[in-house]
Amino acid sequence: MKKNEIYLGTSNQNKVKEAAAVLSLYGIKLIHYPLERVEIQSDNLKEIATFSLKNIQENIPIVIEDAGLFINKLKGFPGPYSSYVLEKLGNPGILKLMEYEKERSAQYISELAYRDETGIYNFQGVVEGSLSTNIRGNNGFGYDPIFIPNEGDGRTFGEMSDIEKNNLSHRSRAFKTLGKWLTQ
Amino acid sequence: MKKNEIYLGTSNQNKVKEAAAVLSLYGIKLIHYPLERVEIQSDNLKEIATFSLKNIQENIPIVIEDAGLFINKLKGFPGPYSSYVLEKLGNPGILKLMEYEKERSAQYISELAYRDETGIYNFQGVVEGSLSTNIRGNNGFGYDPIFIPNEGDGRTFGEMSDIEKNNLSHRSRAFKTLGKWLTQ
Repeated sequence: MKKNEIYLGTSNQNKVKEAAAVLSLYGIKLIHYPLERVEIQSDNLKEIATFSLKNIQENIPIVIEDAGLFINKLKGFPGPYSSYVLEKLGNPGILKLMEYEKERSAQYISELAYRDETGIYNFQGVVEGSLSTNIRGNNGFGYDPIFIPNEGDGRTFGEMSDIEKNNLSHRSRAFKTLGKWLTQ
Repeated sequence: MKKNEIYLGTSNQNKVKEAAAVLSLYGIKLIHYPLERVEIQSDNLKEIATFSLKNIQENIPIVIEDAGLFINKLKGFPGPYSSYVLEKLGNPGILKLMEYEKERSAQYISELAYRDETGIYNFQGVVEGSLSTNIRGNNGFGYDPIFIPNEGDGRTFGEMSDIEKNNLSHRSRAFKTLGKWLTQ
């Protein structure tokens, strides 16, 4: 067991909740480290998360997540700018851009940058899916009400319980990989 | 005269051309400093330009521009992410988002961060306008073919000559302010 307690640097309570549920399966306690991150503009989530990590001076085991929705037909938009685009256009804006579009495939990607006294390590989680044509469900957050995972039963993440979503999601996959690695 | 020669840090040749034309009116030579910038994610163009400037180590008089199109109906989208959004959605994507929308007002904003041995200085240029309903004209670059300045005659920047655009544009206004200040 490398660590049984780590910090998650974020301003997003939803991320804390989802990640804590996953890491608890590995006996790891996740502590919220409130953080308004300095993020760079980049097409690369890993680069963004790692850059943010390097701006944290405190010497604690800490993980930063950068996540995004990548829509193939829109060349990966909104990708690393998913939070900004959600705030400005919302799910209705995405559905408007994708109106009449048949090719609706997309990926949700979560990139983790973790640092402790031994170095910096990166982990990734991906879930393949497609976009719904309308907003469905009130669970989850972000683009969950328009994202239908391929391995599901046709429901959006917004229509799934927390446990169902955590079974499939990009975030849970990334944090599972981190959890396994921490308990090796 | 504070300086008669300064550098512009950018990867965008169009910006160099437009800015050089303006500064030449003040007897200032603009030299292209090729630069892939490190940009932070921020709603604030001034903050983005200033951050990029601080990443340049060389001790030369240099200016960085960050510019964006702010569409009021879309809460300022695409704003600081104008380049990224243009690459992914293009002008057709913006027109799609604004389809059937009557309130089409927008601003083009240019923020300059200039540094020499005496300090860092900021300058701004703004042009008010509205979005066309179709793509018009092949001049300029970026969102020029869909941006109609209020002080013009109804044509988009894309339909104007370089001189006409430079008479009205956010970029020329910012660089005029800089030019005046440098020649004080």
